[in-house]
Amino acid sequence: MSEESIVREDVAEMVGDWRGYVEAKLGFRNHWYPVRFSNELGEGQLQVVELLGERLLIKRIDGVVYSMRDRCLHRGVPLSQKPDCFTKDTITCWYHGYTYRFQTGDLVNILAVPDSRLIGRRKIVTYPVEEAQGLIFIFLGDEDMVHPLARDVPPGFLDEDLMVLGKHRVVDSNWRLGAENGFDGLHIFIHKDTTLRHYRTFNFPIGHTPRPGAVQVVEDEEGPKGVTDDFSQHDPVWDGVIDGQVVISGPRSEQVHGTSASVGTSIWLPGVLKVDSFPNPGLTQFEWYVPLDAKRHLYVQTIGKKVHTEEDRNAFASDFESIWKPHGLDGFNSDDIWAREVTEPFYADDYGWVDEMLCEPDSTLLEWRRVASRHGRGIQTPEKLR
Amino acid sequence: MSEESIVREDVAEMVGDWRGYVEAKLGFRNHWYPVRFSNELGEGQLQVVELLGERLLIKRIDGVVYSMRDRCLHRGVPLSQKPDCFTKDTITCWYHGYTYRFQTGDLVNILAVPDSRLIGRRKIVTYPVEEAQGLIFIFLGDEDMVHPLARDVPPGFLDEDLMVLGKHRVVDSNWRLGAENGFDGLHIFIHKDTTLRHYRTFNFPIGHTPRPGAVQVVEDEEGPKGVTDDFSQHDPVWDGVIDGQVVISGPRSEQVHGTSASVGTSIWLPGVLKVDSFPNPGLTQFEWYVPLDAKRHLYVQTIGKKVHTEEDRNAFASDFESIWKPHGLDGFNSDDIWAREVTEPFYADDYGWVDEMLCEPDSTLLEWRRVASRHGRGIQTPEKLR
Amino acid sequence: MSEESIVREDVAEMVGDWRGYVEAKLGFRNHWYPVRFSNELGEGQLQVVELLGERLLIKRIDGVVYSMRDRCLHRGVPLSQKPDCFTKDTITCWYHGYTYRFQTGDLVNILAVPDSRLIGRRKIVTYPVEEAQGLIFIFLGDEDMVHPLARDVPPGFLDEDLMVLGKHRVVDSNWRLGAENGFDGLHIFIHKDTTLRHYRTFNFPIGHTPRPGAVQVVEDEEGPKGVTDDFSQHDPVWDGVIDGQVVISGPRSEQVHGTSASVGTSIWLPGVLKVDSFPNPGLTQFEWYVPLDAKRHLYVQTIGKKVHTEEDRNAFASDFESIWKPHGLDGFNSDDIWAREVTEPFYADDYGWVDEMLCEPDSTLLEWRRVASRHGRGIQTPEKLR
Repeated sequence: MSEESIVREDVAEMVGDWRGYVEAKLGFRNHWYPVRFSNELGEGQLQVVELLGERLLIKRIDGVVYSMRDRCLHRGVPLSQKPDCFTKDTITCWYHGYTYRFQTGDLVNILAVPDSRLIGRRKIVTYPVEEAQGLIFIFLGDEDMVHPLARDVPPGFLDEDLMVLGKHRVVDSNWRLGAENGFDGLHIFIHKDTTLRHYRTFNFPIGHTPRPGAVQVVEDEEGPKGVTDDFSQHDPVWDGVIDGQVVISGPRSEQVHGTSASVGTSIWLPGVLKVDSFPNPGLTQFEWYVPLDAKRHLYVQTIGKKVHTEEDRNAFASDFESIWKPHGLDGFNSDDIWAREVTEPFYADDYGWVDEMLCEPDSTLLEWRRVASRHGRGIQTPEKLR
Repeated sequence: MSEESIVREDVAEMVGDWRGYVEAKLGFRNHWYPVRFSNELGEGQLQVVELLGERLLIKRIDGVVYSMRDRCLHRGVPLSQKPDCFTKDTITCWYHGYTYRFQTGDLVNILAVPDSRLIGRRKIVTYPVEEAQGLIFIFLGDEDMVHPLARDVPPGFLDEDLMVLGKHRVVDSNWRLGAENGFDGLHIFIHKDTTLRHYRTFNFPIGHTPRPGAVQVVEDEEGPKGVTDDFSQHDPVWDGVIDGQVVISGPRSEQVHGTSASVGTSIWLPGVLKVDSFPNPGLTQFEWYVPLDAKRHLYVQTIGKKVHTEEDRNAFASDFESIWKPHGLDGFNSDDIWAREVTEPFYADDYGWVDEMLCEPDSTLLEWRRVASRHGRGIQTPEKLR
Repeated sequence: MSEESIVREDVAEMVGDWRGYVEAKLGFRNHWYPVRFSNELGEGQLQVVELLGERLLIKRIDGVVYSMRDRCLHRGVPLSQKPDCFTKDTITCWYHGYTYRFQTGDLVNILAVPDSRLIGRRKIVTYPVEEAQGLIFIFLGDEDMVHPLARDVPPGFLDEDLMVLGKHRVVDSNWRLGAENGFDGLHIFIHKDTTLRHYRTFNFPIGHTPRPGAVQVVEDEEGPKGVTDDFSQHDPVWDGVIDGQVVISGPRSEQVHGTSASVGTSIWLPGVLKVDSFPNPGLTQFEWYVPLDAKRHLYVQTIGKKVHTEEDRNAFASDFESIWKPHGLDGFNSDDIWAREVTEPFYADDYGWVDEMLCEPDSTLLEWRRVASRHGRGIQTPEKLR
């Protein structure tokens, strides 16, 4: 149990109606999180993934993916240290032969003690797994709290005609700094030199602030919970002025007429962003900030496009590889990554949540913190990792 | 004083009659521990060793080894940083000339302050040293608690006709995970692929469980305290079965008739294992798990053989170099080492002692924990390191 | 807020009249500290420096140096990560455009939110800066506590005819171990093999102890506060004796007549040493132990010489480069540096302050600890870093 994952009580008490968000340093339990792309785990393959501070095994058996804690019940060693999979369905601990069934977590045998009364009476922790849109999702939580996956992904993500491509990377910051970096409409300032603008058919202001009504909270009982921010109801700022002098201007081209105002962003529990018309009209970026531990998150970056023919699919796959991945997911978003990483120290001891000095448009972030606190289905705490 | 060496009170309170064992994260004080082989310290040589969280100097003077804390009384610097040994019997601190006699620890002078009233009135901590069977033992504890070395080594180790050879390595785990790995009869499962079996004249089951009476506690007042486990009173398991199917079998050869049942193991305070008839009939393995700090132990591995002639000695020395060291101490035991190291994280915050899920044959380990708690002569605590 | 910068209450309570010194693990607030040499910061240049646990920007604008905390008020990121200096006087945060004026710390704009009501109403922390004798000094403290620089440097340092040359290095120890190493008259023992003695025109004893009256406390209201130690009132020790035998002697040459008795040392708040007639008669060494954080200090080493002509200046500059820097600041003082670094572990958890065993001449250090506790203008605490 590392000290850094324990949230300071004095800070939690100071933040009022977003206390739950501050407490969720290790993420919210009882939600679905993507951990890998489906095509990264072939039939019969085993992998180790981290999620909310836990270490898990995933294995694909007869096409279906299962997930189990990577820690033997007996002496707590990682099963993955030397995975003995003597049968398709089981994994045997290399140390003393404790053998678990992937589908249920049942302790089906102890090879060295075949008559132990523990056999058949103990279970290792397993978690539900689902695959959708080419991603493997794990429900990290308690059996009686399972909700449909559709409640934990942004609207439209599960649409049948959506083709999704992407990548993932480990970022050295808490997951919340990822979520806030993404949803924060102001941080466009950081992207003022992006190479992506040469491939986009609209322009970039250096900032924009929401007018009343731009930001909406979504709390339908049967759907995902989140906050939407409609950039068409924003006032863009094109020029940066210091002491009466224009010092910087947002890149504008006469040849294009759209602005980022056609974009809208929304953030959803348990920590996934949707950006409409991005990186270009006709595309939608969906990205997850998956808590690995208190100091790292898996940044799962995807772009979705509606496709109806094989030709559509091929064209999107080609553009993704040549444009949207290098200039968007790699180029544009790499700036977001270092921004999150250098923000981490200020929030690492929790005091950042009370010492920060937010400005008016950051009220969108406060909405997100409140919605997350109201609808997060549980807090992952260090005790849960034992 | 590092935080990791402080034992959690809540855990210590939960474990009942083996509380002392849980508290002895830094080892048991007032016992004898081997730190080096005698032939590693020539006449007049000085070395630094660690023991139970302390850093010590050892020096051989006129054939006799002495041990002293490697920390000047004055400003706490390591004397070994630049050892000024101006006379055979003394060491002078490089910083201000505090000079200590190895035999007594007396502050015999302060070279830069020859009239200080501290001189002759202060002592640096020294510990008793003995050499036996080619090992240098230090009694790490208080002067009035010294017991004979014979009470802290396994029966037979001091036998005059025993020839002892060995090596030592640093292992990145708490010492108790070393002791339990060694004494645990079940962990033979880990050795199922060992190259050692090509050189042994008996077979390996994949597991074996003690029948009533196999395990005995030894608590003679005048001798070492420990637990013995007689493998001839065990039921061997030759086949591992999952879902009714034999998935693995212990290696058996028609050409040899013995089994590991001729082996017996025993574990002794302060943390030393004896394995009879191992690595082969006629040999005995003695191995120590010497606490260096809360997270590391010195694994002192030795093999003893009764010898009566020079020919016997030469034959054993030759077999040791060509067979027992590469295939036993290096090969077979290297699996034990990584097993201990990957077990460490589960026990590092102490919760492993209450979260583990032992099975029936592990009752032998519980006996050991209880015996150690009853007979350990003191707990090394972070305060003792000041 | 790192744990290692929090001082143990039990230790602070045990040390009586030098409690403030023990508490000042991060240094004393409200004092002037040198951070760089003036010639290291050209016109328009920006640098990051550390001081008492804080990270600061320094910039030279129209010849004048200003200092500002390197942490945006908004989300706590380092401005230096990608310094956007769109005008000479300002720095703009790369993340959201918060723009600060160097001279005042005023938040003069938020480029992406030009109508925010925060603008003109918030300030980032700035600190007064002065340059003297080729050094840039920062007053790390509160505006209403500023004192003249002359009260925080040793007597004579600001003399107009003094030419000062030097260098700086980072040392891995708390600043107090630097100050005590320097002022401690006994530690000459460590320098017994220095190459510097070939260039000095006086001899080295191996130790020397103050006679009554040698040590004086200086507490003039209008001047610097410190302790002086006059080596001409010391008794030198030339021979080190163990068991009646001379084992080492201080280097003495028939050809020179002076001894180190012509040297005097003094230590001044907030942690600066003056050594008269050192490294040679006619020179004065001034050296600062500037707290960077709880475990590191900036060792600012300077040598001053009275000069009256251009010829004097050239001669000193030449001797500095060829003799005093390589054999004094680099050679002689490098021994001091490793001595401090290996002393650090004993004091790192604060217990060293009560576990040390000082000898009689160390009473000079106790005087210094008391004077520092009485006259330090404030303690830098972890809370101040928030």
